Amino acid sequence: MRQAGRSLPEYRKVRGGGSILDAIRTPDLATEITLQPVRRYGVDAAILYSDIMTPVASVGFGVDIVPGVGPVVENPITSSADLDRLRPLEPEADLPYVLETATAVAAELGEVPLIGFAGAPFTVASYLIEGRPTRTWTRTKAMMHNEPALWAELLDRLADQALAALRAQVVAGAAAVQLFDSWAGALAPGDYERFVLPASAKVLGGLADLGVPRIHFGVATGELLGHMHRAGADVVGVDWRVPLDIARSRLGPGVALQGNLDPALVVAGWEAAASGAREVLRHSDGHPGHVFNLGHGVLPESDPDVLARVVDLVHTEGRADGQPSLLDP
Amino acid sequence: MRQAGRSLPEYRKVRGGGSILDAIRTPDLATEITLQPVRRYGVDAAILYSDIMTPVASVGFGVDIVPGVGPVVENPITSSADLDRLRPLEPEADLPYVLETATAVAAELGEVPLIGFAGAPFTVASYLIEGRPTRTWTRTKAMMHNEPALWAELLDRLADQALAALRAQVVAGAAAVQLFDSWAGALAPGDYERFVLPASAKVLGGLADLGVPRIHFGVATGELLGHMHRAGADVVGVDWRVPLDIARSRLGPGVALQGNLDPALVVAGWEAAASGAREVLRHSDGHPGHVFNLGHGVLPESDPDVLARVVDLVHTEGRADGQPSLLDP
Repeated sequence: MRQAGRSLPEYRKVRGGGSILDAIRTPDLATEITLQPVRRYGVDAAILYSDIMTPVASVGFGVDIVPGVGPVVENPITSSADLDRLRPLEPEADLPYVLETATAVAAELGEVPLIGFAGAPFTVASYLIEGRPTRTWTRTKAMMHNEPALWAELLDRLADQALAALRAQVVAGAAAVQLFDSWAGALAPGDYERFVLPASAKVLGGLADLGVPRIHFGVATGELLGHMHRAGADVVGVDWRVPLDIARSRLGPGVALQGNLDPALVVAGWEAAASGAREVLRHSDGHPGHVFNLGHGVLPESDPDVLARVVDLVHTEGRADGQPSLLDP
Repeated sequence: MRQAGRSLPEYRKVRGGGSILDAIRTPDLATEITLQPVRRYGVDAAILYSDIMTPVASVGFGVDIVPGVGPVVENPITSSADLDRLRPLEPEADLPYVLETATAVAAELGEVPLIGFAGAPFTVASYLIEGRPTRTWTRTKAMMHNEPALWAELLDRLADQALAALRAQVVAGAAAVQLFDSWAGALAPGDYERFVLPASAKVLGGLADLGVPRIHFGVATGELLGHMHRAGADVVGVDWRVPLDIARSRLGPGVALQGNLDPALVVAGWEAAASGAREVLRHSDGHPGHVFNLGHGVLPESDPDVLARVVDLVHTEGRADGQPSLLDP
């Protein structure tokens, strides 16, 4: 469960008030935060505590994560000259703290798999171009349509960064990876296919030789599920807008799904969360290729006790047939 | 094209800096603003200049439309006692200015149809409960799940208001109606069906005897298209996330579609807008049951000249087969 920490008192206690980027740069702290939801909830995997902007920040592209706002970029990308600020990532030199965290977490987890974390080229690019969170992505879409060469070069550089970051995380101990294209659902399918899929395919395809499950995540991506699978995903994220049986009918039987409980139902309380979780299990219909998760990140106002009960419910009712977890070794 | 005025210099000139609710309460001004896009673009229909909060504001429920923010409610709805602030709407007494505007616009338009305007119960309710725009709808979803009787009563009252407002607009001269459920796409299909569809069906079903086309609009509603049609719509809005041929395959051949050019492509400029508009026409494939439109409102930074050229393109290339407009009398 991504962002599970935000609702945990033990997270708020250790996290303090500094920038999330500073917390990520502190392996002891990032290790503790990554492990907390596993300890609290007994989930079947951990997701590395990181941010989609970690690689670009590490190569000196000026970016901050402003609490209550999100990623804010001092000087957004407007021309090819700005690409000079996005040099290739050298994970061992640029992100040693991330690799140290991944190694420490994997050692602590033992049998529980660690999922590596990277932002997908489109979603990272949208912040670099817009300069801050947007609801319309107008500058991003203008660049992809009006300056396709610049756009392609930008996404290619971000793909190389994401690929390098994820490969290094696997070497450091991650047993699976997740590529977060949180806002890909803002795009028409034709635009996604033309302007985004090649770069995401470069990331996911470049991981194929490592043999780890590759999860491809987004929200409002009901019409993009096929593209997101073809980009090279073993597991496709589905948000609560698409019932899992419908997602499966679009993707065919051989593709695993991740999702898709509405995070707002956890905030609503146990009755709503239990009803929603059972609805997810019902639509999944006992299919082994299903990683139960929320359809998006855990909302900060979630009650940890409700989340704990959801995990128990899924463990009890979602495995009545004794099927193994997708991520079981 | 909804919110077409926002990008027009002639709109900004007459609009001034006051509240949109004040502008709506001034028939001469609201009439002029409604007519401006028809004059400028030669579109085939006008959409009444109004706001989804107009009816609730008119019965004294404290709400303001804050520029750059959206609807803000002083005292959000938290219990059944708050429903007392939502008395039944009497359009002739509560919204005389809206009806005066509709009458004046219809007289000016002549053969060009006027589309009446109302917010759908869910989207209006979400503002009354959240108090301001939200990206998670947590309070709204909590109320529907945890207090279903209060939720149903709230939506029923809002359905009665929307129905009364739309019926009065038709009597005053509107030749079609559009029910705006802008944020319905935030819901899982099961939640939409259980908690929203009955109220929207009350609005649309209650208009059946008037014999005017009923358009049902939302964004990110790819999985809800069938429900939105079954609520009693003759025309279902489709945003740019769903190609029209896919929408048609979900709805069957007998349902008309509205959409679905990405508004951001108009901001990107003529080349991107033209390419996107042709893509829409290609996916519509000459089907007569298609009302060309943007998939959401016109963005304020749009260039009016680009919009004018999009309208010309659609008139030239979208009617090569001589098919009449859906709204032709």
